[in-house]
Amino acid sequence: MEEKEISKAVIRRLPRYYRYLGELIESGVERISSSELSSRMKVTASQIRQDLNNFGGFGQQGYGYNVKFLYSEIAKILGLDKKHNVIIIGAGNLGHAIANYVAFEKRGFIMTALFDINPERIGKKIRDIEVLPLSELEAYIKENEVDIATLTIPKTAAKEVAERLVNCGVKAIWNFAHTDLNLPEDVLVENVHLSESLMRLSYNITSVEKSREEQK
Amino acid sequence: MEEKEISKAVIRRLPRYYRYLGELIESGVERISSSELSSRMKVTASQIRQDLNNFGGFGQQGYGYNVKFLYSEIAKILGLDKKHNVIIIGAGNLGHAIANYVAFEKRGFIMTALFDINPERIGKKIRDIEVLPLSELEAYIKENEVDIATLTIPKTAAKEVAERLVNCGVKAIWNFAHTDLNLPEDVLVENVHLSESLMRLSYNITSVEKSREEQK
Repeated sequence: MEEKEISKAVIRRLPRYYRYLGELIESGVERISSSELSSRMKVTASQIRQDLNNFGGFGQQGYGYNVKFLYSEIAKILGLDKKHNVIIIGAGNLGHAIANYVAFEKRGFIMTALFDINPERIGKKIRDIEVLPLSELEAYIKENEVDIATLTIPKTAAKEVAERLVNCGVKAIWNFAHTDLNLPEDVLVENVHLSESLMRLSYNITSVEKSREEQK
Repeated sequence: MEEKEISKAVIRRLPRYYRYLGELIESGVERISSSELSSRMKVTASQIRQDLNNFGGFGQQGYGYNVKFLYSEIAKILGLDKKHNVIIIGAGNLGHAIANYVAFEKRGFIMTALFDINPERIGKKIRDIEVLPLSELEAYIKENEVDIATLTIPKTAAKEVAERLVNCGVKAIWNFAHTDLNLPEDVLVENVHLSESLMRLSYNITSVEKSREEQK
């Protein structure tokens, strides 16, 4: 039950550990020291030891970490050892991109249906996932287990659809709409605000330009 | 020159202020107190005052913030008062989604070209943005100003393409490939790792389930 005390910062870093360990497995590496992992990931070795000690110290002095074991332990912590059924609301380009991304499925995220209001999209299939009319959302959720709903629709529609999802009992939303959803506290929302990410890049470009001008 | 001392945490929050202020302008609000803004944004009023004081205290006692003025000041800090030319490498669904998102252009991010290796995609247009063959990348960058390169290609190709971009002098990369690029320090990289975002959601779902089971 150590997980309870884990800080948000550690949680934010865990998927990155998971990704690096996955890459190590792919390249046939069986064990790795914290200092090797440190130079690859560009975080300090002591940070790595600290982070991983949260889960009971998987490393052994003089041996390092067993890559496969650590990978599967982090997978469990992240809930990747279970299946999650995911629906996507909005079958535009972004919805397509997500439905097409098979790597999600390897990690247990099963895309089960897309929903849209555009008659030209309804009935089409992305891989073998059907695009259903949004009017069938409630009926679908009643009959199928839905763990995560992905919103890839404009912000004007996002709030209303999010409320419909919550009314049907959906407890986790992956939100790509450029707005905050303001849902009840027991609903988990993970936001991906692409425009905010682009603005951070733009801020950094501007800062670099400014400091260059000042050095002249 | 106050900007130099601004912490990363403040920078992370700025785009969100910008978004909220934009929504206020859209709904005709001309001024707002920090406490009103606080209840909308669900951060404390003192946090808002502290954050905005970094830029010289735009608020006035008893008046609050002038929404349009604050919006345009934050735009300047974020570099949104300048144009940025953006290319997209990878004209798949995600590249399409980004090229189609006109809101980026309103904020000064001008999508000028897409690149791909797939002959079926080359020559097509998304809005009026042409898909060019990836082999023309270097020639294009020589002849056109490119401020930001967006990578919407698989991780296996991302590192090589990123190096080509850097060799051509591109200084900012918006990376959607599920890998770290390990580029020279003077190259700005903003990562959007969608699978890590989904894993954080999955972690939170798992935590909630665990604590529910323990309460039984």
